Amino acid sequence: MGKEMAGPLAGTIVVDLTRVLAGPYATMLLSDLGARVIKVEAPGAGDDARHFPPFVEGDSAYFASVNRGKESIALDLKDEADRAILFRLLERADVLVENFRPGALDRLGLGWHALHARCPRLILASVSGFGQTGPDSARPAYDVIVQAMGGIMSVTGHPGQPPVRVGTSLGDITAGLFTALGIVAALHARGPRGEGSRIDVAMLDCQLAILENAIARFQVSGEDPAPLGSRHPSITPFQAFSTADRPIVIAAGNDALFRALAEALGLPGLADDPRFSSNSLRTAHWQELETLLNQALSRAPAAHWLQALEQAGVPAGPVNGLSAALANPQVAARNMLVTTNLPSGAPLKVAGNPIKASNFPDSPRRAPAPALDQHRAALLAWLDSSAGQEA
Amino acid sequence: MGKEMAGPLAGTIVVDLTRVLAGPYATMLLSDLGARVIKVEAPGAGDDARHFPPFVEGDSAYFASVNRGKESIALDLKDEADRAILFRLLERADVLVENFRPGALDRLGLGWHALHARCPRLILASVSGFGQTGPDSARPAYDVIVQAMGGIMSVTGHPGQPPVRVGTSLGDITAGLFTALGIVAALHARGPRGEGSRIDVAMLDCQLAILENAIARFQVSGEDPAPLGSRHPSITPFQAFSTADRPIVIAAGNDALFRALAEALGLPGLADDPRFSSNSLRTAHWQELETLLNQALSRAPAAHWLQALEQAGVPAGPVNGLSAALANPQVAARNMLVTTNLPSGAPLKVAGNPIKASNFPDSPRRAPAPALDQHRAALLAWLDSSAGQEA
Repeated sequence: MGKEMAGPLAGTIVVDLTRVLAGPYATMLLSDLGARVIKVEAPGAGDDARHFPPFVEGDSAYFASVNRGKESIALDLKDEADRAILFRLLERADVLVENFRPGALDRLGLGWHALHARCPRLILASVSGFGQTGPDSARPAYDVIVQAMGGIMSVTGHPGQPPVRVGTSLGDITAGLFTALGIVAALHARGPRGEGSRIDVAMLDCQLAILENAIARFQVSGEDPAPLGSRHPSITPFQAFSTADRPIVIAAGNDALFRALAEALGLPGLADDPRFSSNSLRTAHWQELETLLNQALSRAPAAHWLQALEQAGVPAGPVNGLSAALANPQVAARNMLVTTNLPSGAPLKVAGNPIKASNFPDSPRRAPAPALDQHRAALLAWLDSSAGQEA
Repeated sequence: MGKEMAGPLAGTIVVDLTRVLAGPYATMLLSDLGARVIKVEAPGAGDDARHFPPFVEGDSAYFASVNRGKESIALDLKDEADRAILFRLLERADVLVENFRPGALDRLGLGWHALHARCPRLILASVSGFGQTGPDSARPAYDVIVQAMGGIMSVTGHPGQPPVRVGTSLGDITAGLFTALGIVAALHARGPRGEGSRIDVAMLDCQLAILENAIARFQVSGEDPAPLGSRHPSITPFQAFSTADRPIVIAAGNDALFRALAEALGLPGLADDPRFSSNSLRTAHWQELETLLNQALSRAPAAHWLQALEQAGVPAGPVNGLSAALANPQVAARNMLVTTNLPSGAPLKVAGNPIKASNFPDSPRRAPAPALDQHRAALLAWLDSSAGQEA
């Protein structure tokens, strides 16, 4: 098909039954690593995300972002002829990825035991809200549900304010990352001729896996950790401060950096103040320190302080909105905004691949997301070809 | 050594020069997948995280969490005899992971070209703040810096409030996930006898990679997306609401779910209200809808509504603090809290592995994090053994 990108997964064929975000993000990562991803969609409407905003001339930029470089075929999984096509695809595939509600695949006759009997090499990866097992397995979950139930919402935000959801769909994205990691590990363990395995990733589980030191802090203190605004629980100063115009962040986690910060702010005595002479003292007296630092920083604009702090060797940075974050020359130098196209042909910038490998190119372009069923004829011709597993 | 866990990376040997969080989180993921991780630490103090709170009887629970199951040897990378030991380890290793500031490895004579010439099979994975290339490559970065510069901080929080940092070190953790994914993909591409490659992951790049639809929204609107509290930019209702006692989240993203929600709240007319009759109308009139839903929900406590919404089939959940998040029976059923031990012997619960695989056990225990230099004698004996690459 000539659609494969060069990458460590070149030659890997992924059949992708996933919709919306967690699953499609996982297969996007596999595609970025060089796998060929064949998206199997419901006839008619296709992936729900085709109808999600923002739109450009009627095309979903949301769908285009996360499905760039994939192929599409529309198959009705309850229709015998279409199921036969699916199985012919699966016989050539290395991986099947799905994010139906647990049990749905079994009801379609596509459960793990049936698949494994028919396609013994195939790896089946499932990503779901609560997982394939446990009392909540069949419950529906969406991003905001697992962000709330998993604990991250309880430690994000300002104390005493209403809850804050992390402003991207971290519940889906984290699950997509772990699913991709599980799939590549299973491919590595299987090798070219080994037996397939079944990978089961739950969005809620992944929320636990990213809680970091909050789990240990709860066990040590016996108390639920509270949200801390922009502060770190045990490093001070390590947070956002206001300046004369807009906020900046400063990370001065040890005594040498704190002294350099104090001097850069024209407050050299601060590093010798007995309230602030060690990191643990600074953390204990964070509120007094925050007030003093905000006062000093409010005397000049952010640009002044960022330059002064860089000269002083104190880690600091602007709180960037999207425009500034994307315009950062470092982002361009790292090829972290790549170009794809919408169905209309209009260009769309999408996030690049953060895994930079010495032995594969990192293209600044990505093939467009497919139109629904766009690759039917080519895929059927490929299945009919005598070349067999050509990829 | 008998330390390997069963898993898809069994037999893989990782030499780990990383400190603190992003790198150690990556190698923890590899260890959870069955790799053997040999942590090389600076003599004397070791990994900085050994001295990070919270402490239990003087032992860092932070360090214990993220370094469970690894081995430790203390080596001075500037000492010739110790460097010789490092190279003997690298000759048997599949992967070297490091998170020094870019350039530091070269100054130690351990840069990619030197390593590749001496150990051609070795994969070198580097995780840094800004990456090995680009104008900011040498700048220091910490979690709060990349959360601020990468854009996620600008879309997280309540409008008009000071900036909010995601309450876990998402800058490090996301980079650790991408680094692990890159390493396993490189192992898969290399195979048992192929040539190694160099993987370069930047914390800032990974922040771009998790921005999801914010990048598309910015391009379509030309405006920086704003923080939305707990709301979703294009799905309504999909957020936290207050009840008579504590907040809950509700995700009713389509018309059928919204009708079910309205009926469960005793407001059946709401689904026919012309302001709320489609998702895009609900999103346009989110504030009026939020007020009405908060009013209705404030008439009973969270437990009442969660039960009523579950019966109505409306996705909903509690905003759990750590105690409730960890006590969830689903978390136990999924083995997502596993037990390790602190150096004192005290048990410590740590997050389990969210990648559940059909062909490998998912142990409810993890070997403890190592004491500094704990495995020196065993590692030297292994290097001297005639068995060669026994692992």
